[in-house]
Amino acid sequence: MSEPRTIGPSSYFDPKDVDRLDPVTGDLVRRRIDALGPSYRLFYRRPLHIVRGSGTKLYDVDGVEYLDTYNNVPSVGHAHPRVTAAIAEQAAVLSTHTRYLHESIVRYAEDLLSTLPDELGHVVFTCTGSEANDLALRIAKKHTGGTGVIVTRNAYHGVSTEIASISPSLVGVDALPDWVRWVPAPDPRRVDWSGYASLGEWFAAQVQAGIDDLAANGVRFAAFVADSIFASDGVLADPVGFLAPARAVVAAAGGVYLADEVQPGFGRTGDAMWGFERHGTAASPFVPDVMTIGKPMGNGFPVAATVLTPEVVAEFGRDMRYFNTFGGNAVAIAAAQAVLDIVRDEGLQDNARVVGAHLQESLRALQSQHLAISDVRGAGLFVALEFGLESYAAAEDLTLAVVNGLKEHHVLVGTAGIYNDALKIRPPLCFSIEDADRFVTELDAVLTELGQ
Amino acid sequence: MSEPRTIGPSSYFDPKDVDRLDPVTGDLVRRRIDALGPSYRLFYRRPLHIVRGSGTKLYDVDGVEYLDTYNNVPSVGHAHPRVTAAIAEQAAVLSTHTRYLHESIVRYAEDLLSTLPDELGHVVFTCTGSEANDLALRIAKKHTGGTGVIVTRNAYHGVSTEIASISPSLVGVDALPDWVRWVPAPDPRRVDWSGYASLGEWFAAQVQAGIDDLAANGVRFAAFVADSIFASDGVLADPVGFLAPARAVVAAAGGVYLADEVQPGFGRTGDAMWGFERHGTAASPFVPDVMTIGKPMGNGFPVAATVLTPEVVAEFGRDMRYFNTFGGNAVAIAAAQAVLDIVRDEGLQDNARVVGAHLQESLRALQSQHLAISDVRGAGLFVALEFGLESYAAAEDLTLAVVNGLKEHHVLVGTAGIYNDALKIRPPLCFSIEDADRFVTELDAVLTELGQ
Repeated sequence: MSEPRTIGPSSYFDPKDVDRLDPVTGDLVRRRIDALGPSYRLFYRRPLHIVRGSGTKLYDVDGVEYLDTYNNVPSVGHAHPRVTAAIAEQAAVLSTHTRYLHESIVRYAEDLLSTLPDELGHVVFTCTGSEANDLALRIAKKHTGGTGVIVTRNAYHGVSTEIASISPSLVGVDALPDWVRWVPAPDPRRVDWSGYASLGEWFAAQVQAGIDDLAANGVRFAAFVADSIFASDGVLADPVGFLAPARAVVAAAGGVYLADEVQPGFGRTGDAMWGFERHGTAASPFVPDVMTIGKPMGNGFPVAATVLTPEVVAEFGRDMRYFNTFGGNAVAIAAAQAVLDIVRDEGLQDNARVVGAHLQESLRALQSQHLAISDVRGAGLFVALEFGLESYAAAEDLTLAVVNGLKEHHVLVGTAGIYNDALKIRPPLCFSIEDADRFVTELDAVLTELGQ
Repeated sequence: MSEPRTIGPSSYFDPKDVDRLDPVTGDLVRRRIDALGPSYRLFYRRPLHIVRGSGTKLYDVDGVEYLDTYNNVPSVGHAHPRVTAAIAEQAAVLSTHTRYLHESIVRYAEDLLSTLPDELGHVVFTCTGSEANDLALRIAKKHTGGTGVIVTRNAYHGVSTEIASISPSLVGVDALPDWVRWVPAPDPRRVDWSGYASLGEWFAAQVQAGIDDLAANGVRFAAFVADSIFASDGVLADPVGFLAPARAVVAAAGGVYLADEVQPGFGRTGDAMWGFERHGTAASPFVPDVMTIGKPMGNGFPVAATVLTPEVVAEFGRDMRYFNTFGGNAVAIAAAQAVLDIVRDEGLQDNARVVGAHLQESLRALQSQHLAISDVRGAGLFVALEFGLESYAAAEDLTLAVVNGLKEHHVLVGTAGIYNDALKIRPPLCFSIEDADRFVTELDAVLTELGQ
């Protein structure tokens, strides 16, 4: 596998271009750089000044409508009135923390747990997915007495110091600490799994090799961490079941299996409420030791959670308290409850399955006209469309041109994959058949414009 | 200095007592323990089931009103209508992240920076104070190339893996990693600073000794981290200026001075908008390299920030992006802007100074009747009332009895200090003279009931 080139700022606005923006936008961008400093990025070669959202649509300062196929946080739709009302009503009444009794947090936790395997028995609330993963790893290390962590090649799990350390897509594989090992992501088209009974057996062997290498270097294994849809590794959904052998290897080694459901959770994959469920069967369900959730949980309200088996959290709970000032406060819970209710009431998991299948089918139909499209894959409303050209660099350039071209066509989309050579199509779950068709039409037009 | 005893669960509800609660409360507590697991705590021997808040008052499920002298998050008052309206209005319109242009985040950042020394030039938004401190330390380590951190004996800076590691009040001094050194807190009544020109010179010498000890062990100094009011070390406010010599020592050693303003910030000390400002003069202002803010910033909405000099963040900004999905989203900024506006429009810093002074004076007047009160100290509406008995353990027992007694008198208060021997009085900043008098009256009654 060739090394990915260092991803430049080409999918982002380059501050050197500020003088090429219209005066009003240029002024705002300059003030923003002055006030927020150099660690911030803006999407697109020409940044987008968004002022309003509704459902799957965003509107810029000039009133132009954009179809949002990128944002997974507003999972039930931008500014969903039920979520807005729940937040407004609760904020007007009470917003205190978890050291007073409050009924709604208990009711929500019970409701959430009812969607999960019985083994996952406790919910601990945080504000962000990063905090949820950070806490999960802290608890896993306490439980196992180990420190070793295994992640995939281009994994992203968050931004705290600890979690950045296990996120090679953020810090690079060379910067991983000595207690972290990476394994190639289970991409059936890009890894050589000949000699193994299945992709899953091959992947399990990689994880076992990582565990063995940790042990050989005196590092006790604590946790295997994976996003069940492998979003930053390029969206790897199939064949379902490929995670089961790795899960068995982790259990046999006494480690904690941490399913990072921040991206695939809450029905996005269409097949199931939780991404890991796709990798089990009725006879042999897939049960992680820990699950983390975030992004769509409050439709933009900062709320996230770590869900654990009682066994994993026992030692931590005995020796340590955990208090997150805002985590699970009354308003956060109101937002989260509204989202969970809407996902069910509006049948959004079903919608993700139906519209996602239609979208994949329509995108595959484009392949005959646009030969640069080398693959369409995904599950539900988490879809990747990959470009294959003479080099990965050329494919990345095309991907970025398409992202910026679609933006000029008023469609917002992101990129995915270790080579940054795929579109990441991950819209709000209320995405309609019409929305999907509009995306396909505009993509067709952009590719034609680009001579592809 | 004698070692503090391990702080037991006595200021919290003991789950073993669940059968002694009334049936309705007992049932909710049991369900809560089942769903949330063992890392959660409830305040008070008999937990409080709060359902509503307004201004400085909280109301339980039976409609009983409590005077809140504990909660610093709802700094402008529980359920302040302007904050509620700002959140509701923005949530109904848009709640997206910082990779699209949005005017409000720029305007708020400029507004916040206008309250600060010119050197502090950039704001990076997070969701929690823990995240703000975690990011600050990550940046400080990148800037200095060092890892060594110095904190005070009972410091608390947050709950991420990294920040728990520099929070001895959470993990204990014995569990600090080898890159952390603790120094005694600058408590003028409990440390021996004879031989030094001032308490500040003594404290600076402790910090220098910490830096030297890190160096002697091959650890390069990165940052000194202190809450400018030393909340968990017992609320240490005076003499103003005592932090200045330590600040000079940190600068001379090439380290980053991180002012954790999560507790004293936003006008609470009455004397200034930011706690560190109290330690400077007009001629010689106190300027940290990094400031972190959180808790009251959104009056309960999860929003926090790291504020930095351009110099400190330069290397990090060059090599690394930072993206916090919910950090500084449009709704978070709406809440934060409302709070900043209210603090100014309602004169809450002035109110903190005036009511805080009245409160301290009234509490000191109690000392003649209640000899157990050994000290009253603080700044603005951050006040500690310390008990002195034959032992620290006895003082802690009295403190906890007073906390639970005041709760039965419908007044909510917390504890502070390494020996847990002081009341921590830290109400919403709209606390009135009448509220202060009610607190003093009820404290008087509780101490009388307790025979003190």
